[in-house]
Amino acid sequence: MGSDNQHKIGILGSGKGSNFLAIQNSIRSGYLPASVEIVLSDVENAGILTIAQDHHIPHHFVNPGRFRSRLDESAEAECIRLLRESGVYWVVLAGFMRVLKGAFLEAFADRIVNIHPSLLPSFPGLHAWEQALDYRVKYTGVTVHLVDRGVDTGTILAQHPVPVMDDDTSLTLHQRIQQAEWQLYPRVLKNLVTGRYSVRGRNAVLKEDHFQA
Amino acid sequence: MGSDNQHKIGILGSGKGSNFLAIQNSIRSGYLPASVEIVLSDVENAGILTIAQDHHIPHHFVNPGRFRSRLDESAEAECIRLLRESGVYWVVLAGFMRVLKGAFLEAFADRIVNIHPSLLPSFPGLHAWEQALDYRVKYTGVTVHLVDRGVDTGTILAQHPVPVMDDDTSLTLHQRIQQAEWQLYPRVLKNLVTGRYSVRGRNAVLKEDHFQA
Repeated sequence: MGSDNQHKIGILGSGKGSNFLAIQNSIRSGYLPASVEIVLSDVENAGILTIAQDHHIPHHFVNPGRFRSRLDESAEAECIRLLRESGVYWVVLAGFMRVLKGAFLEAFADRIVNIHPSLLPSFPGLHAWEQALDYRVKYTGVTVHLVDRGVDTGTILAQHPVPVMDDDTSLTLHQRIQQAEWQLYPRVLKNLVTGRYSVRGRNAVLKEDHFQA
Repeated sequence: MGSDNQHKIGILGSGKGSNFLAIQNSIRSGYLPASVEIVLSDVENAGILTIAQDHHIPHHFVNPGRFRSRLDESAEAECIRLLRESGVYWVVLAGFMRVLKGAFLEAFADRIVNIHPSLLPSFPGLHAWEQALDYRVKYTGVTVHLVDRGVDTGTILAQHPVPVMDDDTSLTLHQRIQQAEWQLYPRVLKNLVTGRYSVRGRNAVLKEDHFQA
């Protein structure tokens, strides 16, 4: 770390973009010393691209190709090219619904961050809040982690618990988890872009604050 | 439920008995309207038997037999007999290190309670706090659940999250989790013995309080 582009973020998302909006609002309020340089989506009419447009941030639809759960080779190459040209250090997944493969992981090794709507390792994969409801846990939560070759298995940067209420529906629980996401993601990104994380293998710890005389 | 022995508890434990002591203290303080009628252990010199003796509670060492991870048939039958004779409704596992099998589960169906030192379904089985440390989660916790045929898979009654600190050792994390256990177990047992839980399959919910005019 310590690169001079460490504050530059690229975002990948497939949906409405509520986490991107939370990040962007944290930047505009001065809380998060970062800048979103580019937003990419595999969904042509995704809300996240509209938000990028409203905020005058470069944004692109990248045709994902013939696969359902990942990008094909040319889409992956296109994403890598666009992110590199934009000069970003961090690739931040914000509701991106495809698994990233080898070439992408190598291009941005240990610089891809994801947020997952459960306390991993419980409930990896899709619709984690529905998995939690079906299992009838009393607490689920939110996990921010680095992305590795597994599905939601990478080094954990931060977590936050969220209670499950007896009368929760999929909708009410998902909303409560999302509100926790909008708090946690900007907080973790602030620690990342300011170089406060020390990551060794699975062990990601926050360095002590340095006090100046 | 609604039986007239619903406040009577039998305890099974293999170790020091700190959860049993927390339960017993909650009873003596008047918080938990229950009584521990009997304490059984598969370990002859277990601290939990000494605590029972100090509190003048009937207690027995039951020779577990030839297996390492479960009771043999005669030991299981002996436990069932002793628990039945003591008139208990609830069987409360407090650091009991053996898996209970069919005959026992049938004898006390849906009336066996366990406390597990993680937020299940993460980290079932032995040394859950070490599993959590190795995985480097930022939150783990405590789960109280009914016992079924699986290992730590039964219906969840309550959970409580516990933070993992960057400088935690196995010892410091285990102590923090145990302190959460000593809070949570008496609270759940209070709701159980007063009939406040409604359990249907995996779904255990607390009934609304009834207000009287």
